[in-house]
Amino acid sequence: MREFNVAILGATGAVGTRLISQLEQSTIPVKSVKLLASAHSAGKKLKFKGRDVTVEEAKPESFEGVDLVLASAGGSISKKFLPEAVKRGAVCVDNTSAFRMEPEVPLVIPEVNEKALYNHRGIISNPNCSTIQMVVCLNPIYKKYGLKQVIVSTYQAVSGAGQSALNELMEESQQVLNGEKTDPKILPTKGDKKHYQQAFNLLPQIDVFEQDGYYTHEEWKMIHETKKIMLDDMDAKDIKVTATCVRVPIRIAHGETVYFEVADDNANTDEIKKSLADAPGVVLQDDTAHQIYPQPIEAEGKRETFVGRVRPDYENEGSYHMWVVSDNLLKGAAWNTVQIAERLVADDLVRVPDNPYLGK
Amino acid sequence: MREFNVAILGATGAVGTRLISQLEQSTIPVKSVKLLASAHSAGKKLKFKGRDVTVEEAKPESFEGVDLVLASAGGSISKKFLPEAVKRGAVCVDNTSAFRMEPEVPLVIPEVNEKALYNHRGIISNPNCSTIQMVVCLNPIYKKYGLKQVIVSTYQAVSGAGQSALNELMEESQQVLNGEKTDPKILPTKGDKKHYQQAFNLLPQIDVFEQDGYYTHEEWKMIHETKKIMLDDMDAKDIKVTATCVRVPIRIAHGETVYFEVADDNANTDEIKKSLADAPGVVLQDDTAHQIYPQPIEAEGKRETFVGRVRPDYENEGSYHMWVVSDNLLKGAAWNTVQIAERLVADDLVRVPDNPYLGK
Repeated sequence: MREFNVAILGATGAVGTRLISQLEQSTIPVKSVKLLASAHSAGKKLKFKGRDVTVEEAKPESFEGVDLVLASAGGSISKKFLPEAVKRGAVCVDNTSAFRMEPEVPLVIPEVNEKALYNHRGIISNPNCSTIQMVVCLNPIYKKYGLKQVIVSTYQAVSGAGQSALNELMEESQQVLNGEKTDPKILPTKGDKKHYQQAFNLLPQIDVFEQDGYYTHEEWKMIHETKKIMLDDMDAKDIKVTATCVRVPIRIAHGETVYFEVADDNANTDEIKKSLADAPGVVLQDDTAHQIYPQPIEAEGKRETFVGRVRPDYENEGSYHMWVVSDNLLKGAAWNTVQIAERLVADDLVRVPDNPYLGK
Repeated sequence: MREFNVAILGATGAVGTRLISQLEQSTIPVKSVKLLASAHSAGKKLKFKGRDVTVEEAKPESFEGVDLVLASAGGSISKKFLPEAVKRGAVCVDNTSAFRMEPEVPLVIPEVNEKALYNHRGIISNPNCSTIQMVVCLNPIYKKYGLKQVIVSTYQAVSGAGQSALNELMEESQQVLNGEKTDPKILPTKGDKKHYQQAFNLLPQIDVFEQDGYYTHEEWKMIHETKKIMLDDMDAKDIKVTATCVRVPIRIAHGETVYFEVADDNANTDEIKKSLADAPGVVLQDDTAHQIYPQPIEAEGKRETFVGRVRPDYENEGSYHMWVVSDNLLKGAAWNTVQIAERLVADDLVRVPDNPYLGK
């Protein structure tokens, strides 16, 4: 049996530490693990299966002899290092948005479009967290009934903006409880000029605004990634998708209200619920008589995506609503990444082809 | 000039204390104020315009000599006492859901359907908080372009469930920050069996579930109240309205993502923004280039409804999105109630007609 030398790029972050634990629990035969991060974190010791592993500064040479890279250190870091890793023969699963929209790069949710892995040229992208949990629920419905339209509003946890944002929420929350002033420095997004209090507040901005000023980049991602994953075409018009993304003061696991219109008149609520209950990676939690519905604090730490409040729209025949919750750091990031790696291993795809993709 | 003897029923609650302060700041000439509550709160002293007023236990006789009642003590209390007040000649503005759907009772947002006040028969209902802030923004758009469809997702503050829910959120938040277990007793709603942690969590249940198990009563209210206020028909099919209501861990001011489809092809985003900017009671906060959008902590304590992120839906021609925030205890409750009372006073409508409505 082939064993793999694995490198984790961005090992010390909120997703990175979960990449380590998901890899520990995975079916991948690991020969060695290399933990890579910025110079700032080099020398730090982390555990892998009980053994101390010293974090190393990421350099192009770090990828010599590596078979598999799991990356979550930010888009610019992936752009810089993943082509270097591919050149050295490593297959990379990237959790950043760096390469997601490149036609040469498969954008994969294993439950939805695993077959796209067969066309990889060295780099595979992990979709955006809020996209993954929605698409893993929409896909079984799409497969059975077709989809005309999707309108989603997100309720996103601050851990999506990284460990420092998570720390900021907790500090601000304590300051508000103490009656003190807050001093926001990170949220809504590091990459923009103004920062606002997130504790006990809602911020309708995730990532920066697109040039037209109408959509945030997060909203853009939910629209175009969904189409690339489900329809293999980021600009497809077959399914209309629109999104509004809002950051809420919770720590882990995003919520989403999803309105969708199916194409097939024969669909009904019971059959849609059954499709969801049977779907891989999805858990139906829908019993309103007993107040059973997905909640972020219950989804935290779990690999599945939870769905409830599935119901018909009384005003629009053929339209339905659902409430979707999943751990944004696991299915939305670390688990989906390791899950892709597991499938690559199982299908003997951990090899860089003759025409590698080395970025643009 | 006529001066009014005013009674506030439910004076000690989250809305009740704000009814006092909104009445203090209003244009209503107040001759006397009576503060009424349950036996439990009787004897408590509250201030009105700097003077101590002792809270009295509400009894039918309490309304003798009262001209105007502002009520927010819960539906069953309104059902019990408001007919008694009307019998004694008092006009009642009720912030509970007790009478909202009665055909004999006007359901009023002054900016939208003030004229309905002319048909009052002693009781006027104040709409649900999440309905008011949405409708005050939809109305100018409806008036100018017509509306075909509305899909709303709410992000509702815990103060909507009362002062005790607000206290519970703050206690739970401190417990989570301390790493302690929480002990929820109120949220999502006092009226249901199970209670869940709201701190750092999302609960897709506001009020109890309707008999069909699909909708919560809050969602039902948003649909049917909107139709009664805008179309004068709670079951009208002219405008399709659907809602998903979610409680989020913030203290005051609800957020709402509102998708709407207009009837008139000539509408465009700039004109819709202008309609909103010109609408009474609405403040347009929409400058994404400078990260300007409504936020609950900024809306808290203000009477206006704030709207931003106004934008076209690129996938659906004639459809748009907006993000609406307003203080649920003020425009959503105490201010709208006092504002109705101001209009009643200004239009000389503080008199019970010959065919009073005394409940059913």
